[in-house]
Amino acid sequence: MSRREIRVYRDLMGANEKWASETRALLRDRSILMLNLIGSPGSGKTALLERMVDGLCGRSAFAVLEGDVETTRDAERLDALGVPVSQLLSSGACHLEAKLVHHALLDLDLDRLDLVFVENVGNLVCPAEFDLGEAGKIAVLSVTEGEDKPLKYPLLFREASAVVLTKVDLLPYLGFRLEACHAHLRQVAGERPVFEVSARTGEGVDAFTRWVLDQCPSSR
Amino acid sequence: MSRREIRVYRDLMGANEKWASETRALLRDRSILMLNLIGSPGSGKTALLERMVDGLCGRSAFAVLEGDVETTRDAERLDALGVPVSQLLSSGACHLEAKLVHHALLDLDLDRLDLVFVENVGNLVCPAEFDLGEAGKIAVLSVTEGEDKPLKYPLLFREASAVVLTKVDLLPYLGFRLEACHAHLRQVAGERPVFEVSARTGEGVDAFTRWVLDQCPSSR
Repeated sequence: MSRREIRVYRDLMGANEKWASETRALLRDRSILMLNLIGSPGSGKTALLERMVDGLCGRSAFAVLEGDVETTRDAERLDALGVPVSQLLSSGACHLEAKLVHHALLDLDLDRLDLVFVENVGNLVCPAEFDLGEAGKIAVLSVTEGEDKPLKYPLLFREASAVVLTKVDLLPYLGFRLEACHAHLRQVAGERPVFEVSARTGEGVDAFTRWVLDQCPSSR
Repeated sequence: MSRREIRVYRDLMGANEKWASETRALLRDRSILMLNLIGSPGSGKTALLERMVDGLCGRSAFAVLEGDVETTRDAERLDALGVPVSQLLSSGACHLEAKLVHHALLDLDLDRLDLVFVENVGNLVCPAEFDLGEAGKIAVLSVTEGEDKPLKYPLLFREASAVVLTKVDLLPYLGFRLEACHAHLRQVAGERPVFEVSARTGEGVDAFTRWVLDQCPSSR
């Protein structure tokens, strides 16, 4: 029998896993921590990063990869604070994929970084399904979204290494019950760190920043 | 030459369009208006519908199809108000597809309905790409999400027949500039009705309800 070439079609998720795996190896070799911030549109992911800049400066060499469907608005906000930032546009897709993140990482000055934040496209569903090679996913949930979101969108909260409840300065004006939200989080995801923060007042931001720095391989 | 059967693979979106088209014909035959509410998780879609019940009762025979990734929580909220409601679970998907909506519609008592709301899965991106056979999409944007969302997630706002800005009772506590948001909406989508509402205080809900009733074929 003559030899036939067998064509192999790798599906999208398989290719994503390959890139995620390469990214994970790359980051491990350089002792860089990469965190993947995931939350709804307007949950305050960029505002959280803006507010963390002061606490990170001098303690970490960090960069941000900003994921969006369109515009460079979020990257411009961080660039204005002097943060090394790249904008990743998803071409209409509702999540970032590992290949794009990998190539954006290679364009950073990795030798001088110890921390990279990926801010994913605003979406509580799909980004949780796509491994980017990160060390951990951070679920960002605004208290304006309602205490039941961990029950309604459980995958992200199960996958997350930590949860950040944002905009807690608005709690006096909302029907949001913090204790009920914590109970829902435990129900879907067991025990894990939950930070209550306000990017407006700064409340809780230092505690989350300390936790992030503690995760860095360089701090161990 | 012998005849060969040519296999045709219809892609997912093609199948979706077929079901959407059948739904559109079904609704036209029955003179039923179907609106597809799309917005982020926690943007207040269910709260808006809850608040509209009083204004719709006696003026419209309506039903709701509640889309969620998991749980029947939103359907239960409307059921408690006596609204005919079905829960559509997306099995983890970030949007509703036309086939599921079509079958859920067939199980309703269509002969006595003139209005159906579909509340899509909470997501500003993907649901806008899937035609469900609706007469119009309604973009639901909470003012807590930020005035720049029409620029960052333009597809939904371009596709929408009307925009509802929710939670306006929180405006005094936010940096949200209404005029900037209106300008962004015009920039991406031209002129279309924009309603400013608060499901908590009831502000603006009657105006949106009147607009919905005016769209019903039975009111013409």
